[in-house]
Amino acid sequence: MSQNRFQNLYPPMPSIFMAPTEIMYDAKHLFLFSHTQGVKKPYKEVIDICWGDAHSGGTKPLTFVRQVIAVCIYPELLQETTIAPDVKERARRLLRECPGGSVGKYCVCGIPFVQDGVCEFISKRDGGVPSYPEDIFICSGSQNALMFVLKLLVHGKGLAQTGVLTPIPCYPTFVMGLTELGAAMVPYYLCEDDGWCLHVEELRRALATSRSHCNPRILYVINPGNPTGHVQSRESIEEVIRFAAEEELFIFADEVYQDMMYAEGSQFVSYKKVLFEMGPQYSNTVELASFHSVSKGIMGECGLRCGYVELVNLDPSVKQSVTSAFNTERNTAVIGQIALNIMVDPPKPGDPSYPTFSQVSLHETVEALPGTSFQAGSGGIYAYLRLDLPQKALLQAKEEGTDPDLMYCSRLLEEEGVCLVVGKEHGQQEGTYHIRICIGTTSTRLKEVLRRLKSFHLRFLNEFS
Amino acid sequence: MSQNRFQNLYPPMPSIFMAPTEIMYDAKHLFLFSHTQGVKKPYKEVIDICWGDAHSGGTKPLTFVRQVIAVCIYPELLQETTIAPDVKERARRLLRECPGGSVGKYCVCGIPFVQDGVCEFISKRDGGVPSYPEDIFICSGSQNALMFVLKLLVHGKGLAQTGVLTPIPCYPTFVMGLTELGAAMVPYYLCEDDGWCLHVEELRRALATSRSHCNPRILYVINPGNPTGHVQSRESIEEVIRFAAEEELFIFADEVYQDMMYAEGSQFVSYKKVLFEMGPQYSNTVELASFHSVSKGIMGECGLRCGYVELVNLDPSVKQSVTSAFNTERNTAVIGQIALNIMVDPPKPGDPSYPTFSQVSLHETVEALPGTSFQAGSGGIYAYLRLDLPQKALLQAKEEGTDPDLMYCSRLLEEEGVCLVVGKEHGQQEGTYHIRICIGTTSTRLKEVLRRLKSFHLRFLNEFS
Repeated sequence: MSQNRFQNLYPPMPSIFMAPTEIMYDAKHLFLFSHTQGVKKPYKEVIDICWGDAHSGGTKPLTFVRQVIAVCIYPELLQETTIAPDVKERARRLLRECPGGSVGKYCVCGIPFVQDGVCEFISKRDGGVPSYPEDIFICSGSQNALMFVLKLLVHGKGLAQTGVLTPIPCYPTFVMGLTELGAAMVPYYLCEDDGWCLHVEELRRALATSRSHCNPRILYVINPGNPTGHVQSRESIEEVIRFAAEEELFIFADEVYQDMMYAEGSQFVSYKKVLFEMGPQYSNTVELASFHSVSKGIMGECGLRCGYVELVNLDPSVKQSVTSAFNTERNTAVIGQIALNIMVDPPKPGDPSYPTFSQVSLHETVEALPGTSFQAGSGGIYAYLRLDLPQKALLQAKEEGTDPDLMYCSRLLEEEGVCLVVGKEHGQQEGTYHIRICIGTTSTRLKEVLRRLKSFHLRFLNEFS
Repeated sequence: MSQNRFQNLYPPMPSIFMAPTEIMYDAKHLFLFSHTQGVKKPYKEVIDICWGDAHSGGTKPLTFVRQVIAVCIYPELLQETTIAPDVKERARRLLRECPGGSVGKYCVCGIPFVQDGVCEFISKRDGGVPSYPEDIFICSGSQNALMFVLKLLVHGKGLAQTGVLTPIPCYPTFVMGLTELGAAMVPYYLCEDDGWCLHVEELRRALATSRSHCNPRILYVINPGNPTGHVQSRESIEEVIRFAAEEELFIFADEVYQDMMYAEGSQFVSYKKVLFEMGPQYSNTVELASFHSVSKGIMGECGLRCGYVELVNLDPSVKQSVTSAFNTERNTAVIGQIALNIMVDPPKPGDPSYPTFSQVSLHETVEALPGTSFQAGSGGIYAYLRLDLPQKALLQAKEEGTDPDLMYCSRLLEEEGVCLVVGKEHGQQEGTYHIRICIGTTSTRLKEVLRRLKSFHLRFLNEFS
């Protein structure tokens, strides 16, 4: 096949970004290979702490989730005495609600019972703000939901090209998705010196600049932040909503880390709650899409693939078409939907499965490393560290024709067997360098990562001082 | 939100098609509603026999599949004495091969062990023709795989617009997918009078006609046919491959019904096998994508969402990019992949779970109805019946402003509680009318459907004679 058959391979990423670095994965495989060949390394195991994948980080899956799914898959387990009554009750209920009482059938539009559960969860979370099943779209994960809604909105070329205001730093798959759909990424920079706050003046600057080359219509926010861990205050959210209302922007609120708040006194407030508390001038007009996922939340079930988007303030004239478009192409695995039901309606204190459930916690503390700077977040599962790399290291990277943070991470992997995400994958201000650590892991593992990182970092500074 | 925000809602279908008819679903819901209101109907239950959904049709899921998945989800079940040893062995093996030994982790590129199993299955099926893991792309169902490959190839407008030769009749979601991606559907008609054979002269005609308005590059075939049930002979496949080679068309072979052959003496031969047996002139050059799915096959696990595509003869220069594109956006549920592994490597005679497994069969006979004509197929799970409707019925439909086959099906649903698929959803020759019945169901259910259909049909003919 000739290359020109494939016209739609990804166009290059914007220059402040790099695509996920296969070089890191190659290095990891190379280590594993050399290990089998008897090559000695100072460590016994590569710790991969790149991804927001709680179970990979050593967190145990929640027994209640796994038992309910096992029973739904194989209902003969309802006879087992070792399975708790509340597990059986939930499984029976879910099986009744599955199409035809089985997890093996097509389920095109999402299970109504699961949609209802999502609404109850949202309404309870938001202090009674109503949520309607017809606004809930269940997908194979939040990224899938994001792409579904984006695809409906993104169009045009040149000045008409849909622009999407995108926070920097931001995880790379979102930016790749924008590129693929033909949207213009409009970067707005989060303020590192102010704990990665979102400043509305920066949104204004980004919007004004973008008007010279595209048509900005969507504002993407991630709260709690990925990779920053920053959690927006109610005031900050209000400001953003006012700005979106003025500029007629559709807000995409990526709120997948909403259940993972670790800083004392810090609280997650949803965009929807704030929107509705700002009164009808906003709550009846501002378009909002809010995303959540079973991959994150307290379950960390990344392999089950399920998430949802709630669409608020869609014009009734397009709602039916959006619903039809959704139903035509989405067909989410039934088992993922079962997990979603448990995420939004976990066992309660007093339920037999409650203790098993609440024992498990993803929240771990993270400490700053010497020779780096760190703006501690209050939520989410990542720590984003800034590296102040010596001039000599920057020159060395230039000589090697690579990026300084990639050079740093490659060596860290090679020398200490720790695999982190290179800052440039998230986009960063020119001349700044970062690394992202997933802190959604066990404390033992995190301590070991920090031990290795510290040892490497001091050696690295020493080499290039 | 104003309508013009959503630029990408589906454009209308080509005129020989209609989108899946919500009216049928509405009618079904209306019945259920009237039932709860105490309205009397001559039947107690609506039989929905539209979709290719074996479990909806009453077929029981395979115990081996369900047990292996339950154990993988909740490995404590390995302690249960009621679970057969081969189930435990398969589950242990699969868990070892899952990323990090769990079904709860991201699995971006597919599980290598599952890819290997698919290759072994293909190679065995094709009498030893080799199959390579790097050519296997695991997706959330075959439609998802189809859209992935199409998306990479479809581009252009006007004369440069990618054209896709599409069999008529064809299931509607494929046509909707083409429309969504901006491809030109190039219809070629299967020959009803010749048992729904694919005639190469018709391909030639369609191709020649299409060149006046697009750039035909892809040839889509469904074998065994949906909805026709026709199974292509080796000679027919050879002809198609020669034609594709001459015209430099990329063959998309939808072979999801390959395991469902019911006519005696009839045999499924894959496009890949034929291609490789035609010698290097073809086997080294013709581009082929072959699709399969756990929704079909012997398992009928539509709710688990998993399928694969094998890409043959990709140019090495694009292969890496295709793989990267795939890995960036696909993240198939791990449980679906487990089901795929069992589909391609079912228990063997002698294994403790074998009897449970082989007891289950989807193959049922289907009989023609009086007053219709029927070209019996040899494989797949559908029967496609032609209705020879009286002139008066056609006039009545015209008066009602509806399609004759839709009128027929709506009345059938209303009067007899049987829900079938309207022919026009699959596209049909002007002036012909059809209905599709899913025969992947129990014989009791199918007999009841035929009984009700016959009763209705005679009444209908009588009314309009």
